Amino acid sequence: MQQTFRLVIDCPDQIGLVASVSQFLADHKATIVEANHHTDQQTGRFFMRHEISADELNLDYASFIAAFTPLANEYQMQWKLTDSGKKQRVALLGSLDSHCLVDILHRWHTAELHCDIPCIISNHPHLKEFADWYKVPFHWIDFKTLGKEQAFAQIETLLEQYAIDVTVLARFMQILPDNLCRKLSGRVINIHHSFLPSFAGARPYQQAYDRGVKLIGATCHYVTSDLDEGPIIEQAVKRISHSDTALDMVRKGKDCEVTALAHGVRYHLEDRVIIHRNKTVVFA
Amino acid sequence: MQQTFRLVIDCPDQIGLVASVSQFLADHKATIVEANHHTDQQTGRFFMRHEISADELNLDYASFIAAFTPLANEYQMQWKLTDSGKKQRVALLGSLDSHCLVDILHRWHTAELHCDIPCIISNHPHLKEFADWYKVPFHWIDFKTLGKEQAFAQIETLLEQYAIDVTVLARFMQILPDNLCRKLSGRVINIHHSFLPSFAGARPYQQAYDRGVKLIGATCHYVTSDLDEGPIIEQAVKRISHSDTALDMVRKGKDCEVTALAHGVRYHLEDRVIIHRNKTVVFA
Amino acid sequence: MQQTFRLVIDCPDQIGLVASVSQFLADHKATIVEANHHTDQQTGRFFMRHEISADELNLDYASFIAAFTPLANEYQMQWKLTDSGKKQRVALLGSLDSHCLVDILHRWHTAELHCDIPCIISNHPHLKEFADWYKVPFHWIDFKTLGKEQAFAQIETLLEQYAIDVTVLARFMQILPDNLCRKLSGRVINIHHSFLPSFAGARPYQQAYDRGVKLIGATCHYVTSDLDEGPIIEQAVKRISHSDTALDMVRKGKDCEVTALAHGVRYHLEDRVIIHRNKTVVFA
Amino acid sequence: MQQTFRLVIDCPDQIGLVASVSQFLADHKATIVEANHHTDQQTGRFFMRHEISADELNLDYASFIAAFTPLANEYQMQWKLTDSGKKQRVALLGSLDSHCLVDILHRWHTAELHCDIPCIISNHPHLKEFADWYKVPFHWIDFKTLGKEQAFAQIETLLEQYAIDVTVLARFMQILPDNLCRKLSGRVINIHHSFLPSFAGARPYQQAYDRGVKLIGATCHYVTSDLDEGPIIEQAVKRISHSDTALDMVRKGKDCEVTALAHGVRYHLEDRVIIHRNKTVVFA
Repeated sequence: MQQTFRLVIDCPDQIGLVASVSQFLADHKATIVEANHHTDQQTGRFFMRHEISADELNLDYASFIAAFTPLANEYQMQWKLTDSGKKQRVALLGSLDSHCLVDILHRWHTAELHCDIPCIISNHPHLKEFADWYKVPFHWIDFKTLGKEQAFAQIETLLEQYAIDVTVLARFMQILPDNLCRKLSGRVINIHHSFLPSFAGARPYQQAYDRGVKLIGATCHYVTSDLDEGPIIEQAVKRISHSDTALDMVRKGKDCEVTALAHGVRYHLEDRVIIHRNKTVVFA
Repeated sequence: MQQTFRLVIDCPDQIGLVASVSQFLADHKATIVEANHHTDQQTGRFFMRHEISADELNLDYASFIAAFTPLANEYQMQWKLTDSGKKQRVALLGSLDSHCLVDILHRWHTAELHCDIPCIISNHPHLKEFADWYKVPFHWIDFKTLGKEQAFAQIETLLEQYAIDVTVLARFMQILPDNLCRKLSGRVINIHHSFLPSFAGARPYQQAYDRGVKLIGATCHYVTSDLDEGPIIEQAVKRISHSDTALDMVRKGKDCEVTALAHGVRYHLEDRVIIHRNKTVVFA
Repeated sequence: MQQTFRLVIDCPDQIGLVASVSQFLADHKATIVEANHHTDQQTGRFFMRHEISADELNLDYASFIAAFTPLANEYQMQWKLTDSGKKQRVALLGSLDSHCLVDILHRWHTAELHCDIPCIISNHPHLKEFADWYKVPFHWIDFKTLGKEQAFAQIETLLEQYAIDVTVLARFMQILPDNLCRKLSGRVINIHHSFLPSFAGARPYQQAYDRGVKLIGATCHYVTSDLDEGPIIEQAVKRISHSDTALDMVRKGKDCEVTALAHGVRYHLEDRVIIHRNKTVVFA
Repeated sequence: MQQTFRLVIDCPDQIGLVASVSQFLADHKATIVEANHHTDQQTGRFFMRHEISADELNLDYASFIAAFTPLANEYQMQWKLTDSGKKQRVALLGSLDSHCLVDILHRWHTAELHCDIPCIISNHPHLKEFADWYKVPFHWIDFKTLGKEQAFAQIETLLEQYAIDVTVLARFMQILPDNLCRKLSGRVINIHHSFLPSFAGARPYQQAYDRGVKLIGATCHYVTSDLDEGPIIEQAVKRISHSDTALDMVRKGKDCEVTALAHGVRYHLEDRVIIHRNKTVVFA
């Protein structure tokens, strides 16, 4: 893997903006691996992502930051520069179902997902087996004994101790408290087992079965304090029929959950997602 | 096209039922073109559709009905026998958008849909052009002048005069009154421009845009007095991204609407749909 | 519809290129509606498309061309500037099947496709009906009487007389001669009724049926003198099963053909397609 | 899981056949969980699968076989009765890539796939790690040292020793010799990483990249001595664009491979697949 820097910009659309950024990059001998632009015509907001080969660049990470800051200020940018060589630290939270968790672990193990996974946290002990295989520390937080408040306090402590960048809820069946949602805003990714906004809340496959839909799906989204209402990153669907029981739908839906979550997490880890109000720009 | 009879049965599941029906068909030299079965494990209801070549059968339509009735009564069947040679009469109702209406007309014109289309009814005059091309009588019902009650009374009269079997709402933007929904229960097919139950009601594409979903869709369903809550026949979806405006979504969604409606109408015309409570069995 | 200019560039990738183009656009007050970039890492070729609002720009079409030419030469660009206000002229060629032709006509009629359609040409008289409805001159070229060489000579003459920009083969069942393929290179779009490279050549649905595939499809591509081997613009597929006869596959495949062709034609008309060797860059 | 018997029949289509089978089932108090029929109109061949609850049936497995044999002979059936309580024994063969193998193991581990997996065989030692996790004996067959003939002789011996019912090639990169293909006919399932018949043979993703297709896929099929030409069970596809490198296509294709193989294997294990000439009937 070649080392790259990713320059991600979110600012008001202005004439001269792209020229200035491009000139800056050219001045520093940047070879562009991938470039994406988007203007939200409704809000006049501009979004840009550049993936730049680090080898030819005549700036290191720190000097890039220093050199770019004046330009960023001039154009009122919200921006970041990330280094592909510096892996994000991901915490996986799960409950009983293993399919999403094991899928993420395997993609990480085979280097499809470039990140570190320093810990797995669960409100049930059952997933420990998989954590052990992948040699990832496993923390069972016993919600029943601790109570919800205390349990989430322990989770919060763990996320801090492990210096977690992004928390992935891999079919974690507990609702995060408001304060944690706010504190980790934009850094918690959930997979909901329906094509939202259909069938928000509990037992979506049963809801789908009862309604008689002909498609089921899954939605990968950022967690906010409004349950199942956060910015959507990715969705997947699958065709079903009258002959599918609610259990068949659970089984078929898992394939949607796995791929929607894996894509969403990868987009996030590669800095391809920008949250804009309650929506996302995804430079997939 | 070979002439076929379609025997569609809906009854409590019972041992011996399939044997009795199959024996009846064998006794009368029926060649089965297509056979489908489904048992709803939850309700214990059994559904069966046979498509039978009429040529080799030693019964005509009337004598089949007479001969089968005792068996049907024995097993408490709701059932029907239809003759593929007898075309159903379809009324198309439209408003301003022509894509669904023109698509249905073209599939009818090229004999993909086996039906008669004796009339097109609209609350706007604009679609007359297409009706004229296809030489179908066009009735403009002026809702503004007549008022909603009077307008629907005229529509009801037209449906009776034309002896309509099934009414297709091809992006007809008026809500049918309760009494008409009830009277025509199971005989009015609508296309809603979202993947229901998401974005029921008005302006679904704008709702989808505002929510930031990554998939848009369309739903073909039977009309009931609960708006957008009737039994779903078919759904279609299409992937979108942040770069799609609400207008792009309208454009892309039309392709979903056209195919979902065309499939739904064909399934209905070929007696492939059985309504069970608020859901459908579709032997597609 | 707002008027836009589309600047489409294809040149060797070079540092400073994007900066120069962006600066040029900024100097002339260009508001960018949409911008897309792509570098082919294998060939080192760079592709860029800008859609620019014409209203705020301080250049008209001719002066843009004049002002941009020195820059284009400096970077060895193959480039074009198109004006959304100037519609391309499309010839539709068909044979017996009407679904693709009627679909293109309807999308044009409802202004989804921004183009002129000054003529329809066919080797059969049957499609005249649809041409008449849409008031488009129809030319029946009688291949049987004329022979293939003479027939294509007449078609070539018609394309010249009507000053056609792009020719769309809407299920036209004659193979274009080599000289015409070369002369109209990059300006003839075909729809092939399989997911190429599977089932090139004649009777693809029968081939698909015989092979027992579980998906059928359609491919929209530019025509070259290598039959069914030209650059692919768009593909669509649909799931089938053992219960589909070859005729069912024809019916289901039509929906793929219609959408793949409509998308491909729209991409072409909006200058979203760049041919690179035997492949396409499609800024969809 | 309730215990079921699966009665799978393949015979010439005959009037009275379904009646006789249904009457047999009714006579023995069979509760039908699922029933599927198909007639191949071209060959006049009839296919039927019944899944029967074993609890209410007044026959055990052996007496069912005995009682049904006269009927089967009368109608010249190829048939089998399987017992869901008796798990098939599956051998997994892999090489270097782990995604398909690990996916099958996980679905087996979580009881989505009802089978035994008594061994994993590979021509590389690398997958041993996963075999160990799932506590499945792992056999590394060193093709380089042994030579191909000797290596496959060892594999054949292993399959016999483990009494394997079905062999799954989970991205196993060696071509089975003709004699083994014939011996295990209908009992070896492969996943090919393209939507066959496109890109048969080696390096399909590179072939797909070079051809510039807009969809990639995977094909699950039975292995025959004609490489990549065996009966297709399942296919999956995914949309790609010009911005995908051959490596991106490998990554995206893996999701297709995983789901197509998992579905194909499940259909086989549940006796949902009947091979008819070089095609399959799949009662999915």
